[in-house]
Amino acid sequence: MQKGKASIAFEHPPLIVSAASVAGKKEGEGPLGSLFDIVESDERMGKKNWEEAESELQKKAAELAIQKAGLSSGDIRYLFAGDLLGQLIATSFGLMELEIPLFGLYGACSTMGEAISLAAMSVDAGYGDRCLALASSHFATAEKQFRFPLAYGNQRPYSATWTATGCGAVVLEKNENSQGKKAKSRPLARISGITTGKIVDFGLKDSMNMGAAMAPAVFHTILQNFEDFEWNESAFDKIITGDLGTVGQTILLDFMKEKGYDLSNVHMDCGIELYNSRTQDTHAGGSGCGCSAITLCASILPRIQEGTWKRVLFVPTGALLSSVSFNEGQSVPGIAHGVVIEHVETVR
Amino acid sequence: MQKGKASIAFEHPPLIVSAASVAGKKEGEGPLGSLFDIVESDERMGKKNWEEAESELQKKAAELAIQKAGLSSGDIRYLFAGDLLGQLIATSFGLMELEIPLFGLYGACSTMGEAISLAAMSVDAGYGDRCLALASSHFATAEKQFRFPLAYGNQRPYSATWTATGCGAVVLEKNENSQGKKAKSRPLARISGITTGKIVDFGLKDSMNMGAAMAPAVFHTILQNFEDFEWNESAFDKIITGDLGTVGQTILLDFMKEKGYDLSNVHMDCGIELYNSRTQDTHAGGSGCGCSAITLCASILPRIQEGTWKRVLFVPTGALLSSVSFNEGQSVPGIAHGVVIEHVETVR
Repeated sequence: MQKGKASIAFEHPPLIVSAASVAGKKEGEGPLGSLFDIVESDERMGKKNWEEAESELQKKAAELAIQKAGLSSGDIRYLFAGDLLGQLIATSFGLMELEIPLFGLYGACSTMGEAISLAAMSVDAGYGDRCLALASSHFATAEKQFRFPLAYGNQRPYSATWTATGCGAVVLEKNENSQGKKAKSRPLARISGITTGKIVDFGLKDSMNMGAAMAPAVFHTILQNFEDFEWNESAFDKIITGDLGTVGQTILLDFMKEKGYDLSNVHMDCGIELYNSRTQDTHAGGSGCGCSAITLCASILPRIQEGTWKRVLFVPTGALLSSVSFNEGQSVPGIAHGVVIEHVETVR
Repeated sequence: MQKGKASIAFEHPPLIVSAASVAGKKEGEGPLGSLFDIVESDERMGKKNWEEAESELQKKAAELAIQKAGLSSGDIRYLFAGDLLGQLIATSFGLMELEIPLFGLYGACSTMGEAISLAAMSVDAGYGDRCLALASSHFATAEKQFRFPLAYGNQRPYSATWTATGCGAVVLEKNENSQGKKAKSRPLARISGITTGKIVDFGLKDSMNMGAAMAPAVFHTILQNFEDFEWNESAFDKIITGDLGTVGQTILLDFMKEKGYDLSNVHMDCGIELYNSRTQDTHAGGSGCGCSAITLCASILPRIQEGTWKRVLFVPTGALLSSVSFNEGQSVPGIAHGVVIEHVETVR
């Protein structure tokens, strides 16, 4: 139930019963490459354009997550989904065939956190026994939308991040047991709580430095989580941000240190994990809703399931960038949604 | 709780305790003009550009709804909000100063239905005692985004609708009484149920005929509502769609008739109500998330509060149009989210 100012502690922490990750070629060549369920060798995925390819990523990830849970699309009550594109076209065209009631979401690169939060709320309240949460991004659709045409060959500064091509999807299921009890099935993890972010604007205006734009928002959400749950970094095996990259990470660690928290040993960033920046030319790291979504599904959840990590704070981070507001001279505000994901002990 | 395939019947129907509507000049000159809380005479609202003006609409509506409920922003647990613009910039920049945890939503013109649905779910489940749901649109930001620059003076066919300039906001509050009991306060109405829409695509490709694109989606949602709640059109004093306009209305009524339902006496469309199409040159009617949002707040809720209407099915309707997908030759799918709004008898 309600916890502090902006958090919820779930009475019956919803279970993540399956996860699927579909990644692009470059992501497949990175350090996490072997962990993805599917690596697409063709960025267009045989489609006419990049937007349709991104829709295809969503479709594949959604169907695979449903299949891995041993379900069919009719078993899913609600979809909570989004992407980075104007009017969520990757989502609209990608999930249409599933014929599942849809809540379309936009939280920039924090969308996976927003989707899991709302899916967990719905499942815990009994509005649906099973819900699907997913988010995608695509390097080419994002560059076209937010920055320069790829053919222009624009030089990217070292603070720039690389929008990940990929989609991560998780199926959440109602937990019949109350907190602490052991589950009979073998879920990947459970969602014990969430901390919902507000918009935070430090006035940054550089669309090539999203890490710096997002750091204040994720800083706020982590602090709020600590305050609401009355704990600190020692409560977590990992605090995992979405796509701060190396520039944003430095800022976050500095901000936290000023408040008396040392995150240096516990912090991990999906954007830094996803690529080898030296060999893959990704500069500050990965970004996009797909970045944290596929890292969660392919790398984080398995480690929680096996018990390497008992409790993780997953905080996807969004930079509310738009080419329209950017060209009108506006700043890039940020938002970050926190999800507390825990290991589930299973009956032997 | 869960009702049928895609609906929820709330055990303690959340109360709408306040509503605020901020409308543009043209909307103020229409049939509902005298009902709006605020009519803006300047489409730019003293701002540098239209996008900032739309943000200002959201800010004013949100603050007024909170104020009319006798609350301050700190009393609101969550915001559920959206608009039509890429990356929801009207919302991001409009609601930032409220410093309330935000779930950003995109459901095209169905966003008010999506926002109220999620806010009602959150309030009923006890995740927040009070939540704010709002949606906005602006004629100039929408035309610029979806069709032609205004200065181009493009001719609009008669099937075209006019994107409304306005923002409607409602505060939802937890209902301590169970269904049927009388409330002590005097709320505007209560949300007794919702029916969440899926994406429906009939393959229409005309961005100047949104009514036809949306009619199949709203048809599906109304049918689903009838099926899930085991009732029909006679259960409602009004079935109110968002922005079908005259073209979409005809299609909906035809579709329903084929299924054996006669909506001709009970149907009303916010897009048709908002303007006088003969004198205001709005052709098929109004559209945009703001259209149904301001009509709800200014015209529908007062009639439910006074008891003229005991039960209404409010179904905002969204056309998932994007200039990118449109220019790539894609169709315009639709989505519609239904909300069952009821009169609350008060203790005398």
